Amino acid sequence: MKTALINGWILSLDDDFNEYNPGYIIIEDDIILDVGHLDDFKNDGIESIIDVNENIIIPGMINAHTHVGMIPFRSLGDDMKDRLRKLLFPLEENLSEELVRASTNYAMAEMLLAGITTFADMYYFENAIAEEVDKMGMRALLGETILNIPTCDGDDQPYYGLTYAKNYIPKWKNHPLIKPMLAPHAPNTNSKHILEEIKTVSKTNGVPIMMHVSEMDYEIDYFKKEYNLTPVEFLNAIGLLSNDFLAVHCIHLSQNDIKLLKKHDVNVIHCIDANMKSAKGIMPLKEVLEADITVGLGTDGPSSGNTLDLFTVMKTIAYAQKTYNKDRSIFPSREIFYLATRGGAKAIREDNHIGQLKANYQADIVVIERESVNMFPIFDPYSALVYSANSSNVKDVWVAGVQLVKNKQLVRRDFQTIRNNLDLEMNSFRKKVSELQNNK
Amino acid sequence: MKTALINGWILSLDDDFNEYNPGYIIIEDDIILDVGHLDDFKNDGIESIIDVNENIIIPGMINAHTHVGMIPFRSLGDDMKDRLRKLLFPLEENLSEELVRASTNYAMAEMLLAGITTFADMYYFENAIAEEVDKMGMRALLGETILNIPTCDGDDQPYYGLTYAKNYIPKWKNHPLIKPMLAPHAPNTNSKHILEEIKTVSKTNGVPIMMHVSEMDYEIDYFKKEYNLTPVEFLNAIGLLSNDFLAVHCIHLSQNDIKLLKKHDVNVIHCIDANMKSAKGIMPLKEVLEADITVGLGTDGPSSGNTLDLFTVMKTIAYAQKTYNKDRSIFPSREIFYLATRGGAKAIREDNHIGQLKANYQADIVVIERESVNMFPIFDPYSALVYSANSSNVKDVWVAGVQLVKNKQLVRRDFQTIRNNLDLEMNSFRKKVSELQNNK
Repeated sequence: MKTALINGWILSLDDDFNEYNPGYIIIEDDIILDVGHLDDFKNDGIESIIDVNENIIIPGMINAHTHVGMIPFRSLGDDMKDRLRKLLFPLEENLSEELVRASTNYAMAEMLLAGITTFADMYYFENAIAEEVDKMGMRALLGETILNIPTCDGDDQPYYGLTYAKNYIPKWKNHPLIKPMLAPHAPNTNSKHILEEIKTVSKTNGVPIMMHVSEMDYEIDYFKKEYNLTPVEFLNAIGLLSNDFLAVHCIHLSQNDIKLLKKHDVNVIHCIDANMKSAKGIMPLKEVLEADITVGLGTDGPSSGNTLDLFTVMKTIAYAQKTYNKDRSIFPSREIFYLATRGGAKAIREDNHIGQLKANYQADIVVIERESVNMFPIFDPYSALVYSANSSNVKDVWVAGVQLVKNKQLVRRDFQTIRNNLDLEMNSFRKKVSELQNNK
Repeated sequence: MKTALINGWILSLDDDFNEYNPGYIIIEDDIILDVGHLDDFKNDGIESIIDVNENIIIPGMINAHTHVGMIPFRSLGDDMKDRLRKLLFPLEENLSEELVRASTNYAMAEMLLAGITTFADMYYFENAIAEEVDKMGMRALLGETILNIPTCDGDDQPYYGLTYAKNYIPKWKNHPLIKPMLAPHAPNTNSKHILEEIKTVSKTNGVPIMMHVSEMDYEIDYFKKEYNLTPVEFLNAIGLLSNDFLAVHCIHLSQNDIKLLKKHDVNVIHCIDANMKSAKGIMPLKEVLEADITVGLGTDGPSSGNTLDLFTVMKTIAYAQKTYNKDRSIFPSREIFYLATRGGAKAIREDNHIGQLKANYQADIVVIERESVNMFPIFDPYSALVYSANSSNVKDVWVAGVQLVKNKQLVRRDFQTIRNNLDLEMNSFRKKVSELQNNK
């Protein structure tokens, strides 16, 4: 069945940043058949025509790093020192699969309603997460976290995530929308031996590795003291850096780190909101892009960011990177919007079929409304998206040709049911939170 | 007539940051009669009871610096070097009173829908702006910009704003919601002689002075070269600093500047979004607050920020100031929310009747809904407001006891009419924009 969206301000994000205003997009099944100027639109065998009323049409946004199981943690201990070890790790010890499933559905609802069609996740019970993603119809890279402590879905052994991954990866390898990956937590929370084994599993199965890298000051100190190396130099020394490696955060990068990342064709995920909120610092985006390293954007988890939308992230990049570089003209809005769409697709190495609105690409499409008070006037649509828009402006969303959001509501699922489920599943989590807070 | 809002999570912002959850507020005419725990609520002669369904109730937010006439400029030249002198000043030469009126209404709609009940404005045709504010029923400090070039509402002489102010101030001095002020543009765009005259007019009329101070690098360079002083030291030398002076921006402050601001009881308005987007820098908020200087928040104009909501501003303060100070625990969300409400009230010296929810204060009240996807769970309401909320979560707004927003819609005005008016009035503005862009 062919469907046409007509009368939109289309930002194609193709090589020439072509805009069609007014324009049309024809989709059939999961594929974009054609994109063009409305004057050239021919109604040949099109069964459904949707007039988008001069609203903006963009490629689905790509959240290249998050933790979908962490909705229960939102607004908890935000301004607390070392929250990770004092609050998050202890609470994560007792998460149930049911709570993670409920949180995953909530997080996907939040991302879809914010115009995100693809995400990369590392958490626990990743097989359950993949089942929920499959049911929701989103596109995702999913990896079970591998870590030197026992985890909620493992036995009492550390590094259970690696055992888990060996069963989990073959199960999802051929899914049309889901790509399994390996997700070691960080260089300082995995042994050298385990990291080497992860490399082997990655090569054998042809799946990527996503890892938090150069995020923590104590991580930097540890590798300096132990090996007189940076975390990136250490990963290079043990042969982990490759075009299958996705380095998340990369706040503390030396010039040599940047050279090594480029040399080994490593892609980088920039999670600026989470990094700044936790006072960890700002990734040197200018230097990384000047080294021709591919960069995608991530929200990080919903208690880090604290929302799963890239509008906030894009705005923060503009503000922070312009100020950091003392140049208001650096990172114009179009370049930042590129990172949230096509950059993200390149970063997760899916740019041969998502990240642009053009023929033969996947129909991952978002309509942004211009009726709300913050969206007028628009001299530059990229400026409007980066500096004015927020997630409440997302009106319609298609993933692989299936409409999942219509007029700001989920199409296939009832949001209130998703929320009520999570609320119910959070009962024992809330008890544990009270215990921890009383023990302080 | 007495109205009660019941069943809300009330953040009073009083001296003890009392929360009433669930709580009630009783208002009569423009005044809050009582605030308390729902258990203590007595229905004595209350004619209207509104159940706010566990949503959050906060004092109206205070946007302590903006330019309401500048909606037409939004998304224009955002990433352009020296946009002020290349684009904004030339376009402002030809603004009509009708365009400024239309923009003022649009800006007020945007602020009300974002939970702002009070604002401070400096622009042109300020008398027309005051007339529109009076009709809308918002609370405002309004000042005509005084500047060393001819302006759109003046004759061909510089400093017309001062002549204007002398007529304008007496006209509005006794208005219940509007407070006139003097608004010299900046230290480097006014002569010493004019600034001295402004001081006299301020003293004679008992009205405050609002001025952009220490915002521009070339402003700093000018005073260094001309007088070997900072802009603040210069203003001190000519006797302009006083408890009637409101210093906006204050990005580049020396230790001595901070001492002088404190010594003369000057209040400061922090407009971090605008400052960072234009790569001007970050005000040393920690040092300013440690010196016990009162700080309020501003969005700056709608082409600087680029929205007229303080949610974005609060989030940016958290991100930037935590990173700048390398401390995730500094400026916890409650302190930042204080700046957007009670801090703003103190900054504009109206804190004896607005900025808190307590008996005998003005009924400037905002309800924030918790139904949207970004507002769950809430362990800490201040965290939710600063890190997760956006303007689309504002549900109901009262100013001086009059409900101006109900269920996310303006009550007394039709937003579409306001928008169509502005769109029509922008026709000649758009032509001028095209001319300027073609001449480049």
